[in-house]
Amino acid sequence: MSQTKQVYMFAEGNAEMKKLLGGKGANLAEMTRLGLPVPPGFVVTTTACNDFYIQGQTLTEEIKDQVSKALSLLEKETGKSLESQENPLLLSVRSGAYFSMPGMMDTILNLGLNDISVESLAAASGNRAFAMDCYRRLLQMYGDVVLKIDHYLFERVLDEVKKAYKVQKSQQLSLEGWDTIVARYKQIIEKESGKAFPQDPYEQLINSITAVFSSWNNQRAIVYRRLNQISDDLGTAVTIQAMVFGNMGDDSGSGVAFTRNPSTGEKKLYGEFLINAQGEDVVAGIRTPLPMSLLEEESPQIYKQFTDICDTLERHYREMQDIEFTIEKGRLFILQTRNGKRTAGAAVKVSVDLVEEGICTKEEALLRVDPSQLVQLLHQRIDPSLDLNPVAQGLPASPGAAWGKVVFDADLAERKNLEGEKVILVRSETTPDDIHGIVAAQGVLTSRGGMTSHAAVVARGMGKPCISGCEAIKIDFNASLFHVGERVIKEGEIISIDGTTGYVYIGEVPLIPPSLSEEFKLLLSWADDLRVLKVRANADTPRDARKAREFGAEGIGLCRTEHMFMEQDRLPVVQEMILAGTEEERRIPLSKLLPIQQGDFEQIFREMEGFPTTIRLLDPPLHEFLPNREELMIEVACLKERGERGPLLEEKEVLLKKVQNLHEFNPMLGHRGCRLGLVFPDIYRMQVRAICQAVAVLKDEGLEPKPEIMIPLVGDARELEVMREIVEDEAGSVARETGVEFSYSVGTMIELPRACVTAGQIAVHADFFSFGTNDLTQTTFGFSRDDAEGKFLPFYVQHKILPENPFVVLDREGVGNLVSQAVTLGREQKPGLKMGICGEHGGDPQSIEFCHLIGLNYVSCSPFRVAVARLAAAQAALKQST
Amino acid sequence: MSQTKQVYMFAEGNAEMKKLLGGKGANLAEMTRLGLPVPPGFVVTTTACNDFYIQGQTLTEEIKDQVSKALSLLEKETGKSLESQENPLLLSVRSGAYFSMPGMMDTILNLGLNDISVESLAAASGNRAFAMDCYRRLLQMYGDVVLKIDHYLFERVLDEVKKAYKVQKSQQLSLEGWDTIVARYKQIIEKESGKAFPQDPYEQLINSITAVFSSWNNQRAIVYRRLNQISDDLGTAVTIQAMVFGNMGDDSGSGVAFTRNPSTGEKKLYGEFLINAQGEDVVAGIRTPLPMSLLEEESPQIYKQFTDICDTLERHYREMQDIEFTIEKGRLFILQTRNGKRTAGAAVKVSVDLVEEGICTKEEALLRVDPSQLVQLLHQRIDPSLDLNPVAQGLPASPGAAWGKVVFDADLAERKNLEGEKVILVRSETTPDDIHGIVAAQGVLTSRGGMTSHAAVVARGMGKPCISGCEAIKIDFNASLFHVGERVIKEGEIISIDGTTGYVYIGEVPLIPPSLSEEFKLLLSWADDLRVLKVRANADTPRDARKAREFGAEGIGLCRTEHMFMEQDRLPVVQEMILAGTEEERRIPLSKLLPIQQGDFEQIFREMEGFPTTIRLLDPPLHEFLPNREELMIEVACLKERGERGPLLEEKEVLLKKVQNLHEFNPMLGHRGCRLGLVFPDIYRMQVRAICQAVAVLKDEGLEPKPEIMIPLVGDARELEVMREIVEDEAGSVARETGVEFSYSVGTMIELPRACVTAGQIAVHADFFSFGTNDLTQTTFGFSRDDAEGKFLPFYVQHKILPENPFVVLDREGVGNLVSQAVTLGREQKPGLKMGICGEHGGDPQSIEFCHLIGLNYVSCSPFRVAVARLAAAQAALKQST
Repeated sequence: MSQTKQVYMFAEGNAEMKKLLGGKGANLAEMTRLGLPVPPGFVVTTTACNDFYIQGQTLTEEIKDQVSKALSLLEKETGKSLESQENPLLLSVRSGAYFSMPGMMDTILNLGLNDISVESLAAASGNRAFAMDCYRRLLQMYGDVVLKIDHYLFERVLDEVKKAYKVQKSQQLSLEGWDTIVARYKQIIEKESGKAFPQDPYEQLINSITAVFSSWNNQRAIVYRRLNQISDDLGTAVTIQAMVFGNMGDDSGSGVAFTRNPSTGEKKLYGEFLINAQGEDVVAGIRTPLPMSLLEEESPQIYKQFTDICDTLERHYREMQDIEFTIEKGRLFILQTRNGKRTAGAAVKVSVDLVEEGICTKEEALLRVDPSQLVQLLHQRIDPSLDLNPVAQGLPASPGAAWGKVVFDADLAERKNLEGEKVILVRSETTPDDIHGIVAAQGVLTSRGGMTSHAAVVARGMGKPCISGCEAIKIDFNASLFHVGERVIKEGEIISIDGTTGYVYIGEVPLIPPSLSEEFKLLLSWADDLRVLKVRANADTPRDARKAREFGAEGIGLCRTEHMFMEQDRLPVVQEMILAGTEEERRIPLSKLLPIQQGDFEQIFREMEGFPTTIRLLDPPLHEFLPNREELMIEVACLKERGERGPLLEEKEVLLKKVQNLHEFNPMLGHRGCRLGLVFPDIYRMQVRAICQAVAVLKDEGLEPKPEIMIPLVGDARELEVMREIVEDEAGSVARETGVEFSYSVGTMIELPRACVTAGQIAVHADFFSFGTNDLTQTTFGFSRDDAEGKFLPFYVQHKILPENPFVVLDREGVGNLVSQAVTLGREQKPGLKMGICGEHGGDPQSIEFCHLIGLNYVSCSPFRVAVARLAAAQAALKQST
Repeated sequence: MSQTKQVYMFAEGNAEMKKLLGGKGANLAEMTRLGLPVPPGFVVTTTACNDFYIQGQTLTEEIKDQVSKALSLLEKETGKSLESQENPLLLSVRSGAYFSMPGMMDTILNLGLNDISVESLAAASGNRAFAMDCYRRLLQMYGDVVLKIDHYLFERVLDEVKKAYKVQKSQQLSLEGWDTIVARYKQIIEKESGKAFPQDPYEQLINSITAVFSSWNNQRAIVYRRLNQISDDLGTAVTIQAMVFGNMGDDSGSGVAFTRNPSTGEKKLYGEFLINAQGEDVVAGIRTPLPMSLLEEESPQIYKQFTDICDTLERHYREMQDIEFTIEKGRLFILQTRNGKRTAGAAVKVSVDLVEEGICTKEEALLRVDPSQLVQLLHQRIDPSLDLNPVAQGLPASPGAAWGKVVFDADLAERKNLEGEKVILVRSETTPDDIHGIVAAQGVLTSRGGMTSHAAVVARGMGKPCISGCEAIKIDFNASLFHVGERVIKEGEIISIDGTTGYVYIGEVPLIPPSLSEEFKLLLSWADDLRVLKVRANADTPRDARKAREFGAEGIGLCRTEHMFMEQDRLPVVQEMILAGTEEERRIPLSKLLPIQQGDFEQIFREMEGFPTTIRLLDPPLHEFLPNREELMIEVACLKERGERGPLLEEKEVLLKKVQNLHEFNPMLGHRGCRLGLVFPDIYRMQVRAICQAVAVLKDEGLEPKPEIMIPLVGDARELEVMREIVEDEAGSVARETGVEFSYSVGTMIELPRACVTAGQIAVHADFFSFGTNDLTQTTFGFSRDDAEGKFLPFYVQHKILPENPFVVLDREGVGNLVSQAVTLGREQKPGLKMGICGEHGGDPQSIEFCHLIGLNYVSCSPFRVAVARLAAAQAALKQST
């Protein structure tokens, strides 16, 4: 047994001692050290907890001795005494570990009360009901925590007594009622534990400390620690603090206040308080609290004292604070302070203001804004102060909110939009045929499909809200309506969707417009000064490219050429190309596509002038561009059923046959990426030619396009070697034909496990690597994202089999391990090899930190996440350097 | 320039000098050294070739000098002279590199002929046409190889002259015709090269050597070397040898003979020869060759000399030989010897016989039999001596051959079989509903599906021939026929299928029964003594298990429980279980399945008494057990089309809805494996209970079952940790209920890239790893096997983008790298961790070698490949130790 100090008065500790005093104890100590009016108290340390277990779950005499000494000091400080019947010292006893374990905390309030001292409290407060209520709470908490008596037994008695006295709320009980309750509570304790409730306050204290230490190893706590990977050796501390009461009369009260406005960030005290009430009452919302300005009017001195404390705390913690306080008989006590939660907009403003006020550094400001929150500022969103009831939840496929009339058909959506109506396109899933409908709609809601479904990808690209895979929506297209639960929503009725949360609402919901403040721009400029990673955007169209530049992207990291193929006017030509059987037959449709693609590239290069543009050659399997196979099968079957024998049937059968030929069991692992380029080199050649001809046009105008041609889905070096030869051959032809000299680079997506482990060989033929972590996550885990997110992945995250959805936060152990192997092998082969990431993880802060740590050169994300990435990249650099 | 020896007489070399003399030169030297009658000659070395390139593609004086000296020796030995007009020495000049590069070799025959010496050859042979033919061949070869004149020019002249003289074959030409040809050939050379054909034989020789050296770096050779990863630095040697002619009259001839019968392995000379003919004529088959026995009758002395040489060569090379010989005017010359190609049966017999005759060691015998060939001996097969025309080719999904009447329906197949008819079941693809039809059929032919399709897997398990994905077959089920090309095959017509090659034949093809000779068993017993790897079988049924033991399997490495689910009598219960919505509703069907599964396991454990049995819990996605989704969709659509509104439609719609709910975009990456076990633990618990109850029954009888419970598709340690808890909990219940103590182990398939890189953590919870290299190959490459093998993979192999189909031969660079990482990480965590492989690679010799090298404990393969694996494992051990 150690003979070291195991009990600390608050004044002896500080914020650094969290490991020894627990989070709660250390913070109370810190405030005490600052000279703030904290109710005095002391802490029994976590090492005492460990000793407790070493000694077979008993408190040593040494600890008891130190507790007694601390108690004496506390009594001296408060002028009260635990054992006193007239002027009793009442205590709160709380557990507090190094890591916060919400819901695991055992707490006992009002400790010290007994049959006699409760009357003293009644007298002091002038409110016997209040005193009795305190006593019965102590009895229940003590019974529950110390004696393990089911709290249901106490609650039942309370209900019975209320019923007997015919009152709804316990506040309405008569004194007689309270006496009955206290008496019956004591009976429960005696009956269940075999002993009467201890009237000796010291015995109460020692038993409570013992109980809190024991609670460290209850089943609930053990499971919680295992799930959250918290070490069992840390132990919990016990904080013992003098009780203060805000409900001792009209010169008492409790409140909660933010040092700045948590909605707007404005530098003005923001909070509310209740006279003659405890803190819980403010939170519970039974009585309407008063604004802080009233406190200023009624008690200017206390208000002044409080605002001074706010300044002190802000300067001390260098951050906006959220403070709980209580006034007991005209005396102010600070119960707790913590960094204030706030909206994204407020977070940005407060952080910038604190820097400008000299309270914190730019680095601190940058670290305190949650990058993920920034996305909110770029999209229209639902007013967060509203309390709304969603009718369904789907996948949050594209952020932002919108409302409009329900429309089930893309053509109708377009028509309504032209008529000036706002519409939400509702489909089971969308296809390229629906693109004009998506363009026309405020947002998209689909009943099927995942985060990478057509609707999701297209909507994200356009920055429109989208909810996908909302299975609660049962669409009846024939009747032009959908069912959700018991409700029926007809075409033309208004709904609202929130693509950030996946919630669907009936009717129009008030929206808040996006706001890009000066503080926002300033904060990001600081981030740009500090970050090492470059930030690019994924952009497929000139429109996306412009948006990307507006948000500060330093190039395009992924331009998906297939999205150009999907546009409504091009799709028929693409289909013509696919349905052609031979290279000869493909020639005409390809020659039609060439000028279209070239035009796209010219516009994109113009938008990106001076910045690199990574263009990925055609990636998806060809059947994605053809009509739906099942629909065709049904159509043909129905035509036959009807006895139809005409040319329509014949035509459909021919089409179906082709679609069947291209059908794949697992399209994700099928004939796509460079596998298309190798088997159909003419398609890739057309694309390379379109790129190079576009480059030549711009070079002729004196501009400097920087194309990076990216070969997708390479798994073996030889694939890239052959593709590179084809690219160089075609580029050489264009250079000869146009007489323009231009440069370009050729690289590959690293998106297959095999590419990672053979990255050394692949690097021989690559000017750059771009990690496609979406597909790499799918193949590394063997998860089809479209299937997993709707089926077992929520179960996995909920049951903590996986810590996070690996499609959102990069899985460092598995996927990240493979990425690291590829970085190492690639750079061993080619030390200066440029590397980036273009999967969706490129916009996720945790993943961006990983990209920084393994030494990537850039991340690329959707235009709307560029700001997130810029800030997250700066945070990663800052964290690494500290 | 080096001054070392760069020209070797044959007598100065030996077989070890392949690097210096090339393969061809070294072998001729070796035979010369053995005192065999090889036409004499010499070799210009590969180092001379390298010097040639260092000197800017010129032959140094030093080399020319050494060539002249060797030529003098050769002239002395033959008694002829290169420059002589009366008794000219004619030469062959051939390239010969260290590695054989077929089709890359440049050859010039009859070198030394000119306008004068050709007449001496005419006189010596008594056949001027022959001599002129030799001359025109020299002109063409010299023109082609040395002067790079397009050989088409010569061929056109030959055609023109034949036409002018109205003959079909050049042999029918008159002497005048030959004169015309030679004259016009010389004109071509003069016109195209600007110089007359050199009449000086020495000039011919030097130019030819130069041309052969130059050919090392022609485009064709460079590409070939790159594709076959042969170093460019090796260079080629040039072999210069005196010509011998077997067509100099009736005392001349040529032949080819095997020292033993290549079909049966019988120890008896086997070959044929032609009188008055060159070697090419024997091969070309224009004249019918004579059996060797006739040579014995006509020239007993030469025959005796030849058989002595055969013995010498067999003893020298310790292997059956395939020998080319020529008799020039009564004198025997050996032109070439090499190890004889033979059937699998002969290979086994010859190897065992050679050991028993003391000619080679057991180790050599084991290394000389190709393990893959052994499979042939276990299945009925098509007589390889027949020359048949297949009408279509599909995927070789299950080896062996069969014939029978075409049947399109499983029920009909069963009925016909009961009537004593042999049938081949022809389907677009099979489902569990067809199992009884597969049982009844001789073999299965499907027009769709890959090597892992239902038909393929089931047929392989039953050891029946199967061809899958035969897309040339267009089935019209309504008309009960299929089209293939222009032909129509109706139900009841006979076809033959060869599941080893994938070929389909019309009509009945003669079959050879399987043969397991004593030699076969002996050879395998030697293999068993030497191998380190254990060999297990993949077996799902008691029948498979028995077969596996018969073939020598030392346990079951993979017992797929879903195949038990697929049997016709169980499927309805399985479907009932799947269609149940809740755990409660699943209880009844699961309780029906429990005794069925337990019964299966009891039988399997009995068959495997004393050997371990690895049982994989349910792996495939649940929708695999349900009716086909598309068929249901069509059925429902057609019912609606007909205006049907009854309970049938309702029932189908409910079923369809369930099937739709379970539908997955990429089932390979979907809700399967332990993902099922985690979400539906009751299913896995039922299986564990069935296993444990079966074990308890056998233990009670005094038997020793050795169950190994395998959790599939683990990607994260936590999955296995949770599953292990469930297994142990259920097994504990069974132990308590039965009162029987039993032991079992719990392990996992390693079949995902993430499992490989996190194998250290997974090993914590595993008693064994079994590498599922089928799925690991799919995820590592991002290849869906079902799609890739029908689409781009053949293109990849054909164009050498990949060296082999990675589903057949384990890809060491990628998949193997991940397997190695897992082995290292797993053993670091748990040094004695048992590891095996249960993917199809477990039956492939190259892959087995890899498994041996990385230190796995066992391989597991289909029962029919156990013999292959036993031999391959021995070879791997032998190769490593040498």
